[in-house]
Amino acid sequence: MVQPEAYADEPWGDRVEANYIVRSREPFNAEARMDGLVDSFVTPTERHFRRNHGPIPNISGAEWTMTVHGVGAGGARVVRLGDLARLPQFEVVAVLECAGNRRDGLQAIKPVNGVTWGAGTASNARWGGCRLRDVLGAAGVPTDLCDPFYATSRHVEFAAYGESTDDAHYASSIPLEWVMNPLNMVLVATRMNGLPLLRDHGFPARIVAPGIIGARWVKWLKYVRVQDSESTCFYQKRDYKILPPIANGANCDEFWPRFPALMEMNIQSAVCRPAPDEALQPGRPYTARGYALSGGGRAVDRVEVSLDGGATWALADVVANAAAAAGSDRDRDWSGRHWSWVLWSFAIASVPPRCTIACRAWDSGGNTQPAEATWNYRGVMNNSVFRVTPRMAGGTSRL
Amino acid sequence: MVQPEAYADEPWGDRVEANYIVRSREPFNAEARMDGLVDSFVTPTERHFRRNHGPIPNISGAEWTMTVHGVGAGGARVVRLGDLARLPQFEVVAVLECAGNRRDGLQAIKPVNGVTWGAGTASNARWGGCRLRDVLGAAGVPTDLCDPFYATSRHVEFAAYGESTDDAHYASSIPLEWVMNPLNMVLVATRMNGLPLLRDHGFPARIVAPGIIGARWVKWLKYVRVQDSESTCFYQKRDYKILPPIANGANCDEFWPRFPALMEMNIQSAVCRPAPDEALQPGRPYTARGYALSGGGRAVDRVEVSLDGGATWALADVVANAAAAAGSDRDRDWSGRHWSWVLWSFAIASVPPRCTIACRAWDSGGNTQPAEATWNYRGVMNNSVFRVTPRMAGGTSRL
Repeated sequence: MVQPEAYADEPWGDRVEANYIVRSREPFNAEARMDGLVDSFVTPTERHFRRNHGPIPNISGAEWTMTVHGVGAGGARVVRLGDLARLPQFEVVAVLECAGNRRDGLQAIKPVNGVTWGAGTASNARWGGCRLRDVLGAAGVPTDLCDPFYATSRHVEFAAYGESTDDAHYASSIPLEWVMNPLNMVLVATRMNGLPLLRDHGFPARIVAPGIIGARWVKWLKYVRVQDSESTCFYQKRDYKILPPIANGANCDEFWPRFPALMEMNIQSAVCRPAPDEALQPGRPYTARGYALSGGGRAVDRVEVSLDGGATWALADVVANAAAAAGSDRDRDWSGRHWSWVLWSFAIASVPPRCTIACRAWDSGGNTQPAEATWNYRGVMNNSVFRVTPRMAGGTSRL
Repeated sequence: MVQPEAYADEPWGDRVEANYIVRSREPFNAEARMDGLVDSFVTPTERHFRRNHGPIPNISGAEWTMTVHGVGAGGARVVRLGDLARLPQFEVVAVLECAGNRRDGLQAIKPVNGVTWGAGTASNARWGGCRLRDVLGAAGVPTDLCDPFYATSRHVEFAAYGESTDDAHYASSIPLEWVMNPLNMVLVATRMNGLPLLRDHGFPARIVAPGIIGARWVKWLKYVRVQDSESTCFYQKRDYKILPPIANGANCDEFWPRFPALMEMNIQSAVCRPAPDEALQPGRPYTARGYALSGGGRAVDRVEVSLDGGATWALADVVANAAAAAGSDRDRDWSGRHWSWVLWSFAIASVPPRCTIACRAWDSGGNTQPAEATWNYRGVMNNSVFRVTPRMAGGTSRL
């Protein structure tokens, strides 16, 4: 249990509350307001959502150390910021999405165990740092995926400084082979949008794991450890899993070991404009806007919008995408990994007097979003078709 | 155009027609019958579906050559079967699925352009051969994904001997970086279920690209070529794409360049027992059976069955899966790639007098199958919830 006084040193000066819907203060959990979220392809840091499982550590960059150890790493090594700076530096524009994004849609079906979130726990940022692969390689972990070392599946566990509400500390893991593929761009990140990380975002160093749910992007890194099996931490074993609907608070212990820890994001999209409290003018033109994203490096190939709640669909315009950000020409060559969200827009010539605006996306894995949500105990990975019924100016109340 | 006499030398002796529903004879296209398809985790070769775009080449193994060329390969090299046999040999159990699997469900909405298929164009096999990565590496292509060569996305094109119905020959491509990751197990395969390939399956050598749609598993290999952009062949550029529903035979030229070539399979499942023509006994017990699969190495995490067409769902038992085949213990460690299908079963204590049996699956990317299909012109990637309304013994007619 975290004691209340552990929250005495929170970075309140870094939090522009007008940008957020604050869901809890201790720990600080705040999602981005829909209005403004998709004004830019790269989300400004001050609008980027904040998701925490405990008090924010206050670490001196000069004094920070991270330990690298485990199978193949030939004994523990202590790494400082200066060591990271001497490795090749990379930047990747990648969307960070909490697996609980849009939990409110599952909460509406039946109570779930978790912080309530709308669609504001997804944001795109330019992350900078060194590859975790290079950190592990420098510590003696084989870097060639043909090495017999990789005949066995292994994990890399990331652990955070500070306390957490559900376990001794926050820790989580992902498969080692994913980390060691340099094209997956798993970083020990020290910069976000060109500046040092804010404390809320993991200062001085965090994991950036593009294509993978936010729960694995561990902040305030204390150690990284190569091990023979996945993390045994609460956040790996008893959280961030899609349990079947029969699992609940009374019987979930039976189900945790039967279902795997989440990793890649699923295909997802949301309407940001109109925002939930925005009034539309019937008969006037309006441009709906939103985001779409997928996991595992898959591209968003198509976004569709419906004005009748999902009965009929039309193509939206994708106005910014990862390929554009990387300077490539999608018409020429469809290969490459996609780590960013895409922004979309849909011009409505004349707003109908009553409408429910819906969006859905399709990814390069051929998947699309289900029409209706399926409830799960932890309220994760809700990617059902997004619907918003806007209030109409002139007195029509919101449905 | 392929002339009719080109079909004079088809391997009829290798085709046990009782195992198939034959959809066309020239080219030979036959899907597996549902009854018997999931009797074994590895599909017997004689039950494995056959999908062709032209006559079957009749190639002598002793005389066969394949050319390896393109960017980074330092000039064309000629490879023979003996050269492949001298490279390290691997086996992988992987499901092969045609992107047109279950096209009948889209055809039922509106006519589509393509061979009609039920759910019998998916089968699991044990493929053997050498890694394409090693073939390319031996020809001078850099094998280190950190090499600046991989700062640009490239493709490997595979071309087949023989004629095809829609282009000069059959060719297709996938991203080079996918091929060069040894854990993706892209093979130049020469064996299927322990024996040399049948002619129908690509003798003497074919591509095996686990997790990727069958259209990229090119047979009767004539050349592999590293190139700066994807294949320009019909089967890459004007086929095997999910076009939006507004695209049709009259306007599709506008849409082909706007949507990407398919690669990874989507989450999929089917009921094989009861088979379409199988009668159930009301009031008696029955065990429904089927398969589920996903693409890109993602695991099938959960299979559900409904007896009321999808209104309510219960967990099915997964009776065989890729992890079991690989000898690993899923409860201990959830990492690793998943290239096989899984087989599932669902015990019905007492068959209701009327029922529509449905199945759906969830994968490790957090995706599930949509309740209803969305039509597309080429009729590909239909992974909507699978439903079968069995005939009841005693005279109740099938709905």
